[in-house]
Amino acid sequence: MTRHKTWILTDAHGDVWLDSFSASNDSLRLPTPHDWSIRKRTLRGGLRDGIDLIEVHNGALSYSILPTRGMGLWRGDYHGLPLGWRSPIEGPVHPKFVNLADRGGIGWLSGFDEWLCRCGLSFNGPPGLDTWSDANGVQHQAQLTLHGRIANLPANAVEVSVRLDPPYELSVTGEVEEAALFFPQLKLTTTYTTVPGSNRLVIHDRVTNRGARQAEMQLLYHTQFGPPFLEAGSRLFAPIREMCPLTPRAAEGIDSHDSYGPPTPGFAEQVYVYDLIGDARGMTLVLLVNAAADKAACLRFPTSELPCFTVWKCTQAHEEGYVTGLEPATNYPNFRGFERQQGRVRTLAPGGSWDCRWSIEIADTADAVLALQKEVANLQAHTRATIHRAPQPKFSALA
Amino acid sequence: MTRHKTWILTDAHGDVWLDSFSASNDSLRLPTPHDWSIRKRTLRGGLRDGIDLIEVHNGALSYSILPTRGMGLWRGDYHGLPLGWRSPIEGPVHPKFVNLADRGGIGWLSGFDEWLCRCGLSFNGPPGLDTWSDANGVQHQAQLTLHGRIANLPANAVEVSVRLDPPYELSVTGEVEEAALFFPQLKLTTTYTTVPGSNRLVIHDRVTNRGARQAEMQLLYHTQFGPPFLEAGSRLFAPIREMCPLTPRAAEGIDSHDSYGPPTPGFAEQVYVYDLIGDARGMTLVLLVNAAADKAACLRFPTSELPCFTVWKCTQAHEEGYVTGLEPATNYPNFRGFERQQGRVRTLAPGGSWDCRWSIEIADTADAVLALQKEVANLQAHTRATIHRAPQPKFSALA
Amino acid sequence: MTRHKTWILTDAHGDVWLDSFSASNDSLRLPTPHDWSIRKRTLRGGLRDGIDLIEVHNGALSYSILPTRGMGLWRGDYHGLPLGWRSPIEGPVHPKFVNLADRGGIGWLSGFDEWLCRCGLSFNGPPGLDTWSDANGVQHQAQLTLHGRIANLPANAVEVSVRLDPPYELSVTGEVEEAALFFPQLKLTTTYTTVPGSNRLVIHDRVTNRGARQAEMQLLYHTQFGPPFLEAGSRLFAPIREMCPLTPRAAEGIDSHDSYGPPTPGFAEQVYVYDLIGDARGMTLVLLVNAAADKAACLRFPTSELPCFTVWKCTQAHEEGYVTGLEPATNYPNFRGFERQQGRVRTLAPGGSWDCRWSIEIADTADAVLALQKEVANLQAHTRATIHRAPQPKFSALA
Repeated sequence: MTRHKTWILTDAHGDVWLDSFSASNDSLRLPTPHDWSIRKRTLRGGLRDGIDLIEVHNGALSYSILPTRGMGLWRGDYHGLPLGWRSPIEGPVHPKFVNLADRGGIGWLSGFDEWLCRCGLSFNGPPGLDTWSDANGVQHQAQLTLHGRIANLPANAVEVSVRLDPPYELSVTGEVEEAALFFPQLKLTTTYTTVPGSNRLVIHDRVTNRGARQAEMQLLYHTQFGPPFLEAGSRLFAPIREMCPLTPRAAEGIDSHDSYGPPTPGFAEQVYVYDLIGDARGMTLVLLVNAAADKAACLRFPTSELPCFTVWKCTQAHEEGYVTGLEPATNYPNFRGFERQQGRVRTLAPGGSWDCRWSIEIADTADAVLALQKEVANLQAHTRATIHRAPQPKFSALA
Repeated sequence: MTRHKTWILTDAHGDVWLDSFSASNDSLRLPTPHDWSIRKRTLRGGLRDGIDLIEVHNGALSYSILPTRGMGLWRGDYHGLPLGWRSPIEGPVHPKFVNLADRGGIGWLSGFDEWLCRCGLSFNGPPGLDTWSDANGVQHQAQLTLHGRIANLPANAVEVSVRLDPPYELSVTGEVEEAALFFPQLKLTTTYTTVPGSNRLVIHDRVTNRGARQAEMQLLYHTQFGPPFLEAGSRLFAPIREMCPLTPRAAEGIDSHDSYGPPTPGFAEQVYVYDLIGDARGMTLVLLVNAAADKAACLRFPTSELPCFTVWKCTQAHEEGYVTGLEPATNYPNFRGFERQQGRVRTLAPGGSWDCRWSIEIADTADAVLALQKEVANLQAHTRATIHRAPQPKFSALA
Repeated sequence: MTRHKTWILTDAHGDVWLDSFSASNDSLRLPTPHDWSIRKRTLRGGLRDGIDLIEVHNGALSYSILPTRGMGLWRGDYHGLPLGWRSPIEGPVHPKFVNLADRGGIGWLSGFDEWLCRCGLSFNGPPGLDTWSDANGVQHQAQLTLHGRIANLPANAVEVSVRLDPPYELSVTGEVEEAALFFPQLKLTTTYTTVPGSNRLVIHDRVTNRGARQAEMQLLYHTQFGPPFLEAGSRLFAPIREMCPLTPRAAEGIDSHDSYGPPTPGFAEQVYVYDLIGDARGMTLVLLVNAAADKAACLRFPTSELPCFTVWKCTQAHEEGYVTGLEPATNYPNFRGFERQQGRVRTLAPGGSWDCRWSIEIADTADAVLALQKEVANLQAHTRATIHRAPQPKFSALA
C-alpha cells in the first residue's frame, strides 16, 4: 500500500483556503538526500497582485505553478538553467487585468508570459465567429477569442501530495472549470509530479465534460523556451512523418525550419506543423538543443492524445521576447472551424473525458543530449520525413 | 419609538470595512425563541475569490446576500429545502472574472448562478446597439449587453439592522451605483428583511436617478428555482389576464405552459410573458408548486411597479442547470428598443426614484400550498385568462 | 552631497509590498516647521476595493496618488480648497471593474474620476480601428479604446523619498508598464515632488521604449477642476498663438471660449485646442481663475514636450460632473490616425525615451492670481492670438 501525505491548499466550494503553505524535507524528513520543498504564497503589487504561486523544488529541478492562471507553469529551473522565456510583459498577470475580447479578440496576449500555458478548453487558435451545425442539424455560433479561456481562469481546488515511500513523488493537483449556462461545461484536472533529484516533470491532465450533451474540446500546450536552450544555432529534433509551414511567412524559412537564428528585431513569427512518428506504444519526443549540443529540453508525449505538434519560431530581439514554442496538442492552431472540418476537434460525450500523461525533461550534458538525439533518430529510422515547402490544405487554413 | 441596533459593514466612501461580522441571538439575547444570526465573511479561491457573503438565518429561513454582485441573493434554505438552483458554473463569481461584452455581449452568463439576480438598471434583455431619439429630438445610441450591469457591480455601502422590539426584524441594506460620466447615474438601495422564524423574505428596492436629467430605467428580478420546487409535474399558478409565448420555440410548448417536465438534456429554453391580475391594492402572486403539491415558492409583488411577469422554463438536464425563472419586472425581456416603443421603459426624473416592496415566501405543507392556490384562484375568479398561442406584437419583438 | 531617505513600497518583481506605510515630520524630525506626511493604505469595499492610495501632505498642499490606476492623482487640497472634481462615479475605481472595450470602446469612462489622469501611452483620443503602414511599408492595424490603457494599469514599483537637507523635497516615484507580446513596450516612470509648505506639485514623467523597434507614443494629462476654481464667471488665461474649436459644438461657444457658465443640466461638452506661446526656455502656463479672481489653478509646462494644449469645457450640472479639463499633451485628442497624419504622434527609438517636467501650482489670494495673470500677459505681449471660429484642418479631424 502506498502512503501519501496530502494537504488541501484551496477548495473554493468547501471554503478551504491557505494563504501560504510550506512542506519540505526539513519538515517531513523522508529518507531522500534531495532537498525538496513545496511552497505557496500570494503575490502582491502590479499586474501580479492577488496571484497564487506554488513553487516546487525537487532538489535539482524547480517550477512554479499558477493556480490563478489555469494551473499554468510560470517558470522553471534545472541546475541553474532557466526554463521559460522573457516575455515583454513582466508577469505573472492576474486575469483581472486581462480582457480576452480586447484588441479585437487577442487580449490573451496581455497575460502571456508563461513557460507552459494551456490553450483551450473549448477552443484555441485565432479569434473569430465560429458558425457550425451539429449532428442534429442545429445551427450554432460562438465568438472565439485567441487561444481560449483556460489560462485566465482560476483553479477552484488545489491539493499537494507527497508520497512517503520511494521514489517520494511530489505532486500538485488542481481543478479548473470552464463553464457557463448554455455553454460547454469542461473541467480540467491536472497533476504535476516530479521525483526528488530528477530532471523530469510529468503532466497528467484530464478534461471532463460535466455537461449532459456532447461537447467539443481543444487543448494545446504552449510550451516556451528562451535562452540558454534557444540561441543562434539551436536546433529542433523531432521524428517527422510529415511537416509543413502553417503560413506563407513560415514557408519563407522552410530551409532552416529546424534551426534557429539569433535575436532579430522585428522578426515576424514562423509556425510549422508536424505529424510525428511514435514508438510501439505511440510515444514520441521532440528536442530543442542548444548550439553546443550540451543542453536540451525534451517533451515526450503520446501521439494518440496529442497527435498535432506545432513549433512556433519567434526569434525577435530579447526585449521583444526571443522565444520558441513547442506545442503538443489535440489540434493545429488554425481557427476552430477549419480544424473541425479536418476532424481535429475532439468531442467528449456527457461525462466523458480526455486523459493524457506527458513529460518535460531537461538534459544538461552532451552525453544526455546525444542519447536523446539517438532516440529521435531511431524513431525516424524507417520513415522518410515528408517536408512540404508550402502550406498544405490538410494542415493549414491558409493553404 | 422603535429601537434598532445597526452595524455598518461597508462604507467605501467613509472608509469603513469589516472583513467579517457576526450578530446572533446568542450575542443580542432578544426575547425570541428563534435561533437567528447574521454573518459576513469573505470568500477565497477560484472564481469566488474576494466575494463578500452575508448569511442571514432567521431560525427557519436562511439566505445569503452577495454585496459584491449587486446585492443579489446567492442561495437560500427553508427548513432544509434548498432555494435556488444548480448552475453549470459553481459560483458565486466575482465580477473581476466576468466580461459583460464577451461572447458578443452575453458575457453576463459567465457569472450567473444566483437564486435572485437583478437585471438592470439602465437596461436588461438581449444585447445589441440601441438607437433612439429623446424628447428633444437628440439622437442617442448605446451598446447594450445581456441583462445589464447591476449584477456585476459591488455595493459601496452595506448595513445590518436588528429591531430590538417585536417582531425583531432582521435587515440588511446595500447601495449599488451604476453610473459613469455621460451615462445615467442610477443608484439601487435594497433592504432584505425577515422576521425570526418566518417563511418570508421581504425585498424593498429603490432605484434613484442621481443625475440632473431624465434617465431610463429597467429592472427585472431573475428569480430561479430548481428542485425540490421544480420537478416533473411541478406547476405554475398565476392569476392571468393575458399571456403569450415570447418566441416561436415557446409557442411549441403553449399547451403545457403551466406545467414542467423532467430534466431533458438539450431542452431549448421557453419564455412566457404575462399580464397578471392584482387585488384591490394591486398586489398579485405567483406560485411554483411541486408535483405532490406540498411545497411551493411564492412571489408576491405589486402590479403597479412590476407590471410585467415572465416565466423562464429551462428544464435542461441537472448538469446543464435544470431551472425555472420567475421574473417580476418593470418590462418584458425584449431588447430595450422594443420595450421603449411599447412604453415599458421607465423614466426617472432628476432626483426621482422607483420604489418597490415585494416578497418571497415558502410553503412546505399541503395545507399552506392549498391556501396559496386559493388566493390565485380568487384573483382569477372574475376574469377569464387570455392565453395566446403565438407571440403577440404587444408582448414580443419576435411576433 | 544630497542625502535622502527612501522606502520601497512596491516592487512586484522583487517581491516587496507594504500594505500600509507612514512617514512624517513626527517620525523624521526634519528642521522644517511644516507638518508633512506621506501615508499609504489599501482601500476596501465597492468599486475601490483593492486600490492602493498614497496620501502626501506637505503642510499646505496635499494630494493622493493612485498606483493601482497608473499613478494618477485622485484628489488634492490646498489650504482647504479641493483640487479635482466630483465625477458621477464615486471612485477611485479599481481597473478590475473597468472594461476598456466596453460600450463600443469607451469603457474608460467607467473609471474616470481623477484630478489628474494620464491618457496614453500608445494612444489616446477616441476609439476605433487604426490602420497605417510603417516606414518599411508594412501594414499595421490596432483596435484603439478611448484614451488608452495607462490609467487602468497598476504600478509595479513604487518608492518614497524624502530629502534630508533643505528644501526637504517629498517625492513619490512609480513605474507602470504598458506592454504585451507583439505590441509596443512602453514604460512610464513618474515622480511627484513637493516641498513642505509650498503651493506646488512637480510632475516628472519619463516614457521609455523598452522594445527593440520604434514605438509610437501619445500622452495627454487629463487634469480636472471643479469648484471652487470652476464656477460661473471663472476664466481661462493662456498665452495663445492659435486656437480653434475641435468640434462644431465647440464652435457654437467660441465667443465665450475663455469664460465659464454655471452648472447646466445636459450641457454638451465643448473642446478647444491651443497652440501656446512659451518663454525663452519654452515654458508656458495656463490659468483657471475663479470669478472673484482670488483663486487660481496654474499649470506650467514645456511647449517642446507638450506642444498641444486642450481645454475641455463640461459645465454640466453638479450631479453630472461640473468640470473643466486643462490638458497639456503631446497631441490633440483626435483619433490617432489623424494625429499621425499631422505629425503629432511621437516616435521613440528602441531604448529611447520622452522626458518631461511640469508643475501644478495653486494661488489663493488676489495678489498671487494677479501675478500669474501678468505672466500670461507678458507672454502674449508681442503676439496677437489667432482665434479661429471653426474647426481647422490642421487641428481637428472634424474640420
